[in-house]
Amino acid sequence: MATFGDIGLAAGVNILSALIFLIAFAILRLQPFNDRVYFPKWYLKGLRTSPTRSGAFVSKFVNLDWRSYIRFLNWVPDALKMPEAELIDHAGLDSAVYLRIYLLGLKIFVPVTLLAWAILVPVNWTNNTLAASASLEYSDIDKLSISNVPFGSQRFWTHLVMAYAFTFWTCYTLRKEYEIVAAMRLHFVASERRRPDQFTVLVRNVPPDPDESVSECVEHFFLVNHPDHYLTHQAVVNANKLAKLVKEKKSKQNWLDYYQLKYSRNPSQRPMKKTGYLGLCGNKVDAIDYQTAEIERLSKEIAEERERVMSDPKSLMPAAFVSFKTRWGAAVCAQTQQSRNPTLWLTEWAPEPRDVFWANLAIPYVSLTVRRLIAAVAFFFLTFFFMIPIAFVQSLANIEGIERRAPFLRPIIEVSFIKSLIQGVLPGIALKIFLIVLPTILMMMSKFEGFLAISALERRSALRYYTFNFVNVFLVSVIAGTAIEQLDRFLGQSPNQIAQTIGVAIPMKATFFITYVMVDGWAGVAGEILRLKPLIIYHLKKFFLVKTEKDREEAMDPGSIGFDTGEPQIQLYFLLGLIYAVVTPVFLPFILVFFALAYVVFRHQIINVYNQEYESAGAFWPDVHGRIIVALVFSQLVLMGLMTTKGAAASTPFLIALPVLTIFFHRFCKGRYEPAFVKYPLQEAMMKETLERAREPYLNLKPYLQNAYIHPVFKDDEDDEDEDLNGKLEDSVIVATKRQSRRNTPVPSKLSGSSSPSLPEVVPENS
Amino acid sequence: MATFGDIGLAAGVNILSALIFLIAFAILRLQPFNDRVYFPKWYLKGLRTSPTRSGAFVSKFVNLDWRSYIRFLNWVPDALKMPEAELIDHAGLDSAVYLRIYLLGLKIFVPVTLLAWAILVPVNWTNNTLAASASLEYSDIDKLSISNVPFGSQRFWTHLVMAYAFTFWTCYTLRKEYEIVAAMRLHFVASERRRPDQFTVLVRNVPPDPDESVSECVEHFFLVNHPDHYLTHQAVVNANKLAKLVKEKKSKQNWLDYYQLKYSRNPSQRPMKKTGYLGLCGNKVDAIDYQTAEIERLSKEIAEERERVMSDPKSLMPAAFVSFKTRWGAAVCAQTQQSRNPTLWLTEWAPEPRDVFWANLAIPYVSLTVRRLIAAVAFFFLTFFFMIPIAFVQSLANIEGIERRAPFLRPIIEVSFIKSLIQGVLPGIALKIFLIVLPTILMMMSKFEGFLAISALERRSALRYYTFNFVNVFLVSVIAGTAIEQLDRFLGQSPNQIAQTIGVAIPMKATFFITYVMVDGWAGVAGEILRLKPLIIYHLKKFFLVKTEKDREEAMDPGSIGFDTGEPQIQLYFLLGLIYAVVTPVFLPFILVFFALAYVVFRHQIINVYNQEYESAGAFWPDVHGRIIVALVFSQLVLMGLMTTKGAAASTPFLIALPVLTIFFHRFCKGRYEPAFVKYPLQEAMMKETLERAREPYLNLKPYLQNAYIHPVFKDDEDDEDEDLNGKLEDSVIVATKRQSRRNTPVPSKLSGSSSPSLPEVVPENS
Repeated sequence: MATFGDIGLAAGVNILSALIFLIAFAILRLQPFNDRVYFPKWYLKGLRTSPTRSGAFVSKFVNLDWRSYIRFLNWVPDALKMPEAELIDHAGLDSAVYLRIYLLGLKIFVPVTLLAWAILVPVNWTNNTLAASASLEYSDIDKLSISNVPFGSQRFWTHLVMAYAFTFWTCYTLRKEYEIVAAMRLHFVASERRRPDQFTVLVRNVPPDPDESVSECVEHFFLVNHPDHYLTHQAVVNANKLAKLVKEKKSKQNWLDYYQLKYSRNPSQRPMKKTGYLGLCGNKVDAIDYQTAEIERLSKEIAEERERVMSDPKSLMPAAFVSFKTRWGAAVCAQTQQSRNPTLWLTEWAPEPRDVFWANLAIPYVSLTVRRLIAAVAFFFLTFFFMIPIAFVQSLANIEGIERRAPFLRPIIEVSFIKSLIQGVLPGIALKIFLIVLPTILMMMSKFEGFLAISALERRSALRYYTFNFVNVFLVSVIAGTAIEQLDRFLGQSPNQIAQTIGVAIPMKATFFITYVMVDGWAGVAGEILRLKPLIIYHLKKFFLVKTEKDREEAMDPGSIGFDTGEPQIQLYFLLGLIYAVVTPVFLPFILVFFALAYVVFRHQIINVYNQEYESAGAFWPDVHGRIIVALVFSQLVLMGLMTTKGAAASTPFLIALPVLTIFFHRFCKGRYEPAFVKYPLQEAMMKETLERAREPYLNLKPYLQNAYIHPVFKDDEDDEDEDLNGKLEDSVIVATKRQSRRNTPVPSKLSGSSSPSLPEVVPENS
Repeated sequence: MATFGDIGLAAGVNILSALIFLIAFAILRLQPFNDRVYFPKWYLKGLRTSPTRSGAFVSKFVNLDWRSYIRFLNWVPDALKMPEAELIDHAGLDSAVYLRIYLLGLKIFVPVTLLAWAILVPVNWTNNTLAASASLEYSDIDKLSISNVPFGSQRFWTHLVMAYAFTFWTCYTLRKEYEIVAAMRLHFVASERRRPDQFTVLVRNVPPDPDESVSECVEHFFLVNHPDHYLTHQAVVNANKLAKLVKEKKSKQNWLDYYQLKYSRNPSQRPMKKTGYLGLCGNKVDAIDYQTAEIERLSKEIAEERERVMSDPKSLMPAAFVSFKTRWGAAVCAQTQQSRNPTLWLTEWAPEPRDVFWANLAIPYVSLTVRRLIAAVAFFFLTFFFMIPIAFVQSLANIEGIERRAPFLRPIIEVSFIKSLIQGVLPGIALKIFLIVLPTILMMMSKFEGFLAISALERRSALRYYTFNFVNVFLVSVIAGTAIEQLDRFLGQSPNQIAQTIGVAIPMKATFFITYVMVDGWAGVAGEILRLKPLIIYHLKKFFLVKTEKDREEAMDPGSIGFDTGEPQIQLYFLLGLIYAVVTPVFLPFILVFFALAYVVFRHQIINVYNQEYESAGAFWPDVHGRIIVALVFSQLVLMGLMTTKGAAASTPFLIALPVLTIFFHRFCKGRYEPAFVKYPLQEAMMKETLERAREPYLNLKPYLQNAYIHPVFKDDEDDEDEDLNGKLEDSVIVATKRQSRRNTPVPSKLSGSSSPSLPEVVPENS
């Protein structure tokens, strides 16, 4: 059992490492040669260019201005300064709403912490239960927790009242936040900018017709059934093979570039390569010639495949993007059932063009339910039985196993240092590798399930990742034993007993979770801002590969928020916070620090680093809301279990009301706010329509919508005709960013003495 | 434990009573003076008139044609003869679909019974487990059941395979049936007849506007947002008070009629009545004068109230029936979200005019969620704690209690015969009364919840009634103890244990449920056709009240299917059948007899008796389907529990797959067929539109729709202007009934020698 000293030590270590990360970041980001690692977002927006064109040679790489080092935490106010409206313009609504999750954490837990410390801590402290029972080992933390209240004490009524207060406050904040986010979404969707997805509906499962092609069939159907509103449509082609070829060509092109660079540095020796698998076996050939020939072959294949795809009616998928003359027409079509058979002519809002996950458009609807079932079963086994293959790998990967399989390694292994290293590290490595690839596995599952938008894929992966964490991190930590043992135990226990088992274990695990929050939350978030991996990779790429400005652009890896892994992590903190709010209030400040730190860090990253790949207009908020409700209900059930074991059974009826009320609250919120995330009100569409008609009475939408939803592989060489379209879209994005943003964010002029590196050429308007 | 002899005796008694009912019915229905009790449907349709106008005096009342008595079961082929398409024309789709539930029972259980008897019965019979363990008491039934298979036997694999076969067959039949019913519904909705609800949408929660009345507000909103389709609307007035007054007046009018009749029969004495509560206290006054004065007062009040309702803007509810020019427009409006705030301008399909539950239109939306929560909590307490008040009443209503409260009754009570009567009957009476009023209580709950259509009210009540029966009839019978004891036990037991507890008890209760099926199913259904209660009430009314033809019309009580109580009863049989299919196959024939008998009886009743009050186009089928799925999953879980206690744990993994697959099947069906019951495909609407436009190019819908949704209290005295509208509607109904129906159904000419009474004037066309 940890004393305050232990906790303090752990806190010290973690604060120190967090501080080291922050200082390292403060220094590294000031160096011009790291500029593209720490400010890629601005490069991508075209508002910042490489600082290598002017100035002394040294100052190209190292920032020599000593003043900028002094205020090394200056990025914090910078990150907080940008107003939300501008942030939405700058980074999209998704990012802005994502930040609100951290803000929501602060809004919930700041008052809860104050109240808990003002009332619960004194109530718990002024007991002697733990001190009296000398046989028990207990920590100082426990003296502040509910464990210190004697069995059957009347003081438990305080905890009961507090549980009500916390629930009420959480629900109130959640409702407020849902309201704000829904309003933000509607405002964003109805905002000035015209977007193709406002006019477009994705139609799936077009029934096969012996006399007509899919494209004709779609046109006829919508001309008949939406005669006043139908404008145009784009058929979806199965370009998965073409996309694969293009990708292969690109990779070969990369290798070719690499070999050419190698050759240009060392002209005396032509680079060679083996043609076999992964370049490990096969004949040795001249690498440059080989790659050139390969690229030629692929180019031909691509041309053929493109020809085939364009002409062969079989490559047309039974799906189409149908565009309408008005937003009203699109809203109507997306929300209604078209055909008698509800599995044909399925309509839904088209995702943004860049949000479309093209590979899945080719999946027929009938297989979707089966895929969903398979994914659900697979996920169940993954969650509860993933330890079995890992244990198997571990059993293979022990010393004896290696010696038996590779006797020639025995002399090396038998060295005692190496032996103990292997024995210490190997069993953990299999698990660690699994945990690292887990998000990828989950994403593959979501892709297998057939979602059509990247945003939907990420939302589903987030749900799965949260469930996995809940079972394998939270439950496994609270109750000893693997997930599968628990499953067995829970099937054999009554609901009462389960709640009690968890309830009893919760206060004892407080110190463990405090340490967890410090390591994973504090130091982890501070590490995020340092971007060690992209930093290293960028410099490696720059050193080995970068030749032109475009290469440099591609070497940047801005990354994105990563909703599928980030949100579940935050949710774990919500869960812990809500559970420990009543049980061990000492826990709360640690959660608070996490939320505050993460908010600042991610706000900075969103402004300067991440480049969101799509815009779903905050479509994930219902998920976020729902998971916090689940955490709240879970915490109430756990409290109920704990209270009954503490002899406060009289409070049970009052505690039962809590989950009932919370679920009812959830249903209310669902009815009140969720439609804003699923449907598009006709009134809004009509208003927008009227405005637009008044402003541009002779607007012709057809050219604007004609090629909006074209498969990305066709875009590559239609750049010339496509450019103006993209340009139009991107133009509007950049124009929308107000000029002020360049002053607020860390791209100021040299004279301002800001913490960011001085780059006179960065903003041409300023010079 | 019951032997075959016991079961045979019980079967004999029940078959006898069922036969007595059927014979009594066969005789009574042939008597002309009962004609309105057994064929009210035909009277209401205007296809049959009173037989009292001609013929000898005796033959007016008694059928003297002996030939008609010989073939007393002739109604059975008559009932089965009418083809389904005609049945839909005659009695509506709801009734036709309702009959398909019984048919579904037969479709599922006939092959299951055959298979079970061919395979499972021999497998069970050829064991000696029960005979060997001499200590156990067992019945002959048990020898045919799974109880006779020894512990851990390999024979359990047969039961496992059978469970798969039965599940597969049930799912297959369910899917087929869902497909058929969905097609029937779509065909019905798209059928030729024009109905106002095809063009009309109910709008609720119109936001208050300081400058405009609700009616203006609605008009403006839809003119703006559905400019091409909006036609007209009818505001909803809060006429609940008016309806109450009208009802009161009608009741007084009834009393007045009664007193006048009394006076006319005995002119020497003017009838008197007391003015106080229920006519029990207060001053004695002349009844006729008093009632006349009361009616006058009410007429005045009604006129005032009507004036107020029509003119006062406050009596306008924030709701309206909005009609569109096209079905397409209505379909679009009903399926889309109108306003930014999803709780305003709520649109849904308008129910049929006669299906509207007017009193609930006045409920504001905000209170609906709260009402739903209250109803849910109240239902929970009703289900699990209803025994408490009943036990309380029982404790009051014992001998000592009565003696203490009413000492003057002591001499009577102390008579030993009366005493034992009271002691024997009283405790049961409270429970019996409760069970009789239960459907009414549940219907009140549904009304409180604020559903807008009578069909929706009945669906919700059916769900509740089924749940109540499941807990308090099925579970309480299987496991001894009241529902509340079980709740406590289940909370304290693990899911495994619960499944085992029920699983072990199931085979032992087979004989009990066989008796239950015979009493409730066989004799009960046979009793239904006799219509003893309506028969008695009709003759009482006829004797005391009927003066004119219109009175006689009103004295008929055709009743309706009673979905809210009828369907849950059928579901109980599905549950029992599915559970016992594998466990005790002997049970199945009893279920089969029930389904066959009930199908014939209810088909007859629907053709000749019931007058359905509304038409929901089979909207209840998803509920029926869902509950059968629940029964199937429950039966699988119970089987799993039973198998583990029988030492067949190896089969558990195979059994777990069953509920997973079944639930998956349910989700598939939901996605595939349920939209047909919720949405209205635009393609259908467009097709219908095009057809209609071609046929009637200058159709003006406005007068047709203008008054379709008028509150029934306003209809009474607008009969003249309303008549033609109703006439139009009813005309079409009657015209649609093909002439042939009159030959098939029991209204043939005298010469045909049919079983039905000879009524030459019945069908004017035939004479």
